[in-house]
This record gives sequence, structure tokens and C-alpha cells, in this order.
Amino acid sequence: MIKYPTKKTTYESKKISVKNRGMTFEALIDESNAFYLLNQKAVIHKKPTPVQIVTVDYPARKKAKITEAYYRTPSTTDYNGIYKGFYIDFDVKESNHATSFPLKNIHAHQIEHLKQVDEHGGIAFILIYFKKHQTIFLVPYETLAYFNKRSIEGRKSISYDELKEQALIVKEGYRPSI
Amino acid sequence: MIKYPTKKTTYESKKISVKNRGMTFEALIDESNAFYLLNQKAVIHKKPTPVQIVTVDYPARKKAKITEAYYRTPSTTDYNGIYKGFYIDFDVKESNHATSFPLKNIHAHQIEHLKQVDEHGGIAFILIYFKKHQTIFLVPYETLAYFNKRSIEGRKSISYDELKEQALIVKEGYRPSI
Repeated sequence: MIKYPTKKTTYESKKISVKNRGMTFEALIDESNAFYLLNQKAVIHKKPTPVQIVTVDYPARKKAKITEAYYRTPSTTDYNGIYKGFYIDFDVKESNHATSFPLKNIHAHQIEHLKQVDEHGGIAFILIYFKKHQTIFLVPYETLAYFNKRSIEGRKSISYDELKEQALIVKEGYRPSI
Repeated sequence: MIKYPTKKTTYESKKISVKNRGMTFEALIDESNAFYLLNQKAVIHKKPTPVQIVTVDYPARKKAKITEAYYRTPSTTDYNGIYKGFYIDFDVKESNHATSFPLKNIHAHQIEHLKQVDEHGGIAFILIYFKKHQTIFLVPYETLAYFNKRSIEGRKSISYDELKEQALIVKEGYRPSI
């Protein structure tokens, strides 16, 4: 049963970009991945930020300096790799809200990408960190797809309570044990 | 049996950066990957070029312009994804030489990364395109490791003839059938 949350959503007044918001949590993930790599548990890497390079200068031989470039919207998720022989693919999100995670924080092509991974037999999910609760949820693609479909008709977010019911809680020192 | 090549290696007089050299072949690979994605055969993406961003300007609201950045050495390979449920990981190289492929074209950490993938049960290899012969070789990690080990003691390249004996030839319209 899904418990629908009471409408007492608190919004942050100060606007912080999604990029910066995710930083600390992402740093933790990167650290974990480095740990798993060292300990031969998994090979997971973060993809570089996609950048559209326009102009490159060569102030010195063998030294290329990019002087004009722009951020591009990523066409896939940020993390992928191999875990126990399985292909694993996920993205990392953070919510500053106390009671919900807005679905607009996930790009449409990221959902499409996770769908493809899921269809090809890979492990596809997103990690959502609720700062206020210090809780990390692992949302498998299928659960995400359900909420995404629902967002077309109405509610554009997943509530904290829904996640507590339908997603997995990741323990600190985490590596999801799927 | 390995046939050692005669020493008649022809070197290109003009210096072309490895990056540009790989471009056309890489474009072909990207096209193929798009095809496989569309046809539900595999989900393979090229990773963005890693860039170290130093300065970002905001000439207009919501428009970030990167004004100083530098290329970073990639810590992994350029391509990875999922193929029939298996994790697949490879890099794409091109040789303008007629008779050999210099191993210095592969970064040490790329070999290390392929080793990790191989150890975790993934499909790890490199594709080498010999422009002069219009031949594409698929070199599995184990074969690459053998030549890499040999390069410590002596020969710093893999000859075209060795590849013909020990690597797989990829047919045009390719998707390696491992």
C-alpha cells in the first residue's frame, strides 16, 4: 500500500544548482567506488562531464588550452561499470526537500537510458539521497518507471514515504546488495 | 607460430595527434553503436572526453561558458556498455603504419582498466584499425597483456602479421561476435 504524504512540503528558498547540490553525496560515491575497485569488488567509474569544446589555444607546444566550451546535457547516467560480472548502471541524485524528490531532477534521456539497460539485462537504478533525513534510497528502474509514468498524469514527484515503501534503503558503508 | 616482420617499417613524416588520427574510425564506431542501440542489440556509449574545468563565466543567466579548461588523461577506456547481458569495455585505436601498432598509443591505466574488467568477468578488448590495410583487429585483453608484457623486455609494438595470427579480424558492418 502506498501512503500518500500530507501536503506540507517545505521548499528551499535559496536556489542551489542541482550540480552543486549533488557534490558531497557524489564525492562519497566516488570514494566508495575507489574502495570497491581496490578491494576487487566492482569496477565502477563516473563518466566525465560532457563538454562541447569550441575553441582550443596552444600557448605552448604540447599544451592545449580550451578557451571556449559549454556544458552539454548528459545522454546517459553518470556511473556505470561491472559488479560480479553484471553490468551496472546508475545515477546519483540528491534532494534537499524533506518530503519528496522532484522528478524533473532526472533527465528524460537518463530514464530512457536506464530503460535500455534494464531491457538488456543490466542492473539499472538511481540513488537518491535525502539530506534532511540522511537516508539513501536505491530506486530500481522498474519503480522509477512507475513513478515517471504517474508524473505524466499528475504528481511530478516521489514522496519520501513512497520511497520508504517501494525503494531499498542503502546502509552507510554502502554497496547495494542486489 | 608468430611471424616476425621484416624491419621495413614506414613511418609517417607528418605528425598527426592520436586524437585526430582516430577520428574517422571512431565516427564509424559511434555510428555502429547508434545502430545497435536502435536495433536493441547492445547499449554502448562513448564516454565524454575528460576535461579539467578551471574557469567558468556566466555571460547570461543560465548560460555557463567555460573559458579555461584542459584535457585530462583518461583513466579508463572510451567505450563501455552492455551486450547480451554482458558488460563490454573497449578502446578504439588507429594505426597509420603499414606493418605495426606502437604500444605507446595505449595508456598504462587503460591497460590496467581492461585488466580489471577482464578479472571481473567482463568482455575487454581493443579495436585497432590499420588504415593502410583497411583492416580492423579485435585484440582481447589477454592477447594485449601478452604483448604489453613483452614490451617491457623489448619490442614496443605489435606487428601487423602478429595481429593477423593472434587477434580477430572484424568484418565491415561489424559487431564483434564474441
